[in-house]
Amino acid sequence: MMHQIKIAIDLDGGDLGFEPVIEASISFVESHPDATLLCYGVRESIASIKKRYPNKIEDRIELIECDEAVRMDDKPADALRRKKASTMARGIEAIKDRYAHAFVSSGNTGALMLLSSVTLKLIEGVERPAIVTMLPGKKTPFLMLDLGANTECTSENLVQFAKMGNFLAKDLLEKEHPVVALLNIGEEHHKGHSTIKDASEKLRASELNYRGYIEANEMFSGTVDVVVCDGFTGNIALKSIEGTAGLIKVFIQNILMSNLFYKFLAIFTLPVLAKLRKKMDPRRYNGAMLIGLNGIVIKSHGSSDATGFRAALDIAYKESKSDILNKISRNIS
Amino acid sequence: MMHQIKIAIDLDGGDLGFEPVIEASISFVESHPDATLLCYGVRESIASIKKRYPNKIEDRIELIECDEAVRMDDKPADALRRKKASTMARGIEAIKDRYAHAFVSSGNTGALMLLSSVTLKLIEGVERPAIVTMLPGKKTPFLMLDLGANTECTSENLVQFAKMGNFLAKDLLEKEHPVVALLNIGEEHHKGHSTIKDASEKLRASELNYRGYIEANEMFSGTVDVVVCDGFTGNIALKSIEGTAGLIKVFIQNILMSNLFYKFLAIFTLPVLAKLRKKMDPRRYNGAMLIGLNGIVIKSHGSSDATGFRAALDIAYKESKSDILNKISRNIS
Repeated sequence: MMHQIKIAIDLDGGDLGFEPVIEASISFVESHPDATLLCYGVRESIASIKKRYPNKIEDRIELIECDEAVRMDDKPADALRRKKASTMARGIEAIKDRYAHAFVSSGNTGALMLLSSVTLKLIEGVERPAIVTMLPGKKTPFLMLDLGANTECTSENLVQFAKMGNFLAKDLLEKEHPVVALLNIGEEHHKGHSTIKDASEKLRASELNYRGYIEANEMFSGTVDVVVCDGFTGNIALKSIEGTAGLIKVFIQNILMSNLFYKFLAIFTLPVLAKLRKKMDPRRYNGAMLIGLNGIVIKSHGSSDATGFRAALDIAYKESKSDILNKISRNIS
Repeated sequence: MMHQIKIAIDLDGGDLGFEPVIEASISFVESHPDATLLCYGVRESIASIKKRYPNKIEDRIELIECDEAVRMDDKPADALRRKKASTMARGIEAIKDRYAHAFVSSGNTGALMLLSSVTLKLIEGVERPAIVTMLPGKKTPFLMLDLGANTECTSENLVQFAKMGNFLAKDLLEKEHPVVALLNIGEEHHKGHSTIKDASEKLRASELNYRGYIEANEMFSGTVDVVVCDGFTGNIALKSIEGTAGLIKVFIQNILMSNLFYKFLAIFTLPVLAKLRKKMDPRRYNGAMLIGLNGIVIKSHGSSDATGFRAALDIAYKESKSDILNKISRNIS
């Protein structure tokens, strides 16, 4: 008999409600016969789902009624103290109680971070959890962490992020010896602030395939698999990437609407843009992992649609099947 | 009689040699009858220029022979101590000695920063100089600083950058009350590290049109004119933008080469891409200003061609005609 993978999910975390989540769930269980989903939702959501998808909800999608949901504007500390039976809290507890291998939520990032850390605890030896995601590159995708869990980091934190990223890259990018680099403002060893320099020395002495510093414009070149930085820097880089992609989209739209000649060209340009949009589609890269915890917690984008949420479920599935937590635990402590 | 604008330039700073510099100079003086250029170059460059452009070098392009040039791989401290008669050192001295209103170089950024600071001194009340540049936005361009002069900053540094950026935006963007924002990883007031929070409080109490925090993906939206951050963060953001633009270019190229259908579409797509390339052309935004010094120093990109260097000269000209240094000086101290 196949080993069953159980993934807990938050039906009521995201901006778009339960609909994209349940649709992603249906498509997910259809393609993974060894997977079961535990769906935590509030009473109204569960009732609507039962009514709207009467024939589609099968054995492998369990609906679990909860008292309440964490809202996007809830303060993390309030979500922890006052909403003990929220869809998010109960989903995370399912990992702790060994009902589920992983938890996926599109909800409040700060709350997800805090609740996961308190409930699951950090892997022994890990000082801080990190948020990690996959990003597209010119040749191959790469992983980047931390993306915002830790505004400030010590050099030891950065070294631990590098080690965790290394194991994740082996799984998700299927690289045997992932190339790891520190994000910095120059490649020369005297560049950057003391925390980075210190982390660089430690990484050079580690067993990792450490390449040295990488500049933000070189991340996409395909020469590195794991880019390590503090959460402030990672968040700035990630959002600069997002912003630039949006800017270029607007530029192209403006050009295509600028006069009759370009409007004519637009007819021929659209298939190219459609393919570009698909290639750049952030939904393909949806599903940031909260790494460093005793459990697999995946943060899906707050406004994920079904395609996006499905991508996050696929990451949760892949990580659940792998031995990632043990690998990290064996190698950090 | 018109007030003559004199701009000193470094013929031998950039990666591409003096050629793009002298070509930009010729086109520049042709369109600015009130401008004279003082061109500092090594003996060989001056000799080549005299030979190759015998009829084009007119009265308003003065060629000045120097002993040596600062190289891209020279350490800033070495450039300062050992190369006292370099093209860069003498060009900066021309400002100090009131021969020139501004200096433009494509050379070594660290050396340019150090030599300018030592020779020109900081404006009274300014603690740190900053590197500022114009970036394209969805509707209008905006200014961003610091882009790498200061790896670490105090909140007071950030406030001063905001004030300097404000006056520069009035000149370069022609805005009466530029909107100033601090780059951060969230818009909520509790986000970010203590230096940013502290700077935000100070800016809120200042006379500036301060908007609060802005996230990196929102910079391009047209809602802000001046984005303020420390040099590390600014450099990461700037290079993430550059890298993303390069990534998208590669994606488009790959799509257009992917099969016969797309190769056919390429014929119609090329005019659109040509226009996009023009719109995104980093040369249009070339010319970062070193601000906070008693003099106008413009850093042109290391590999600027004639178009790029010309853009940097235009900024130097615009700033030379304005009262920017006095405005900053009156308002900081």
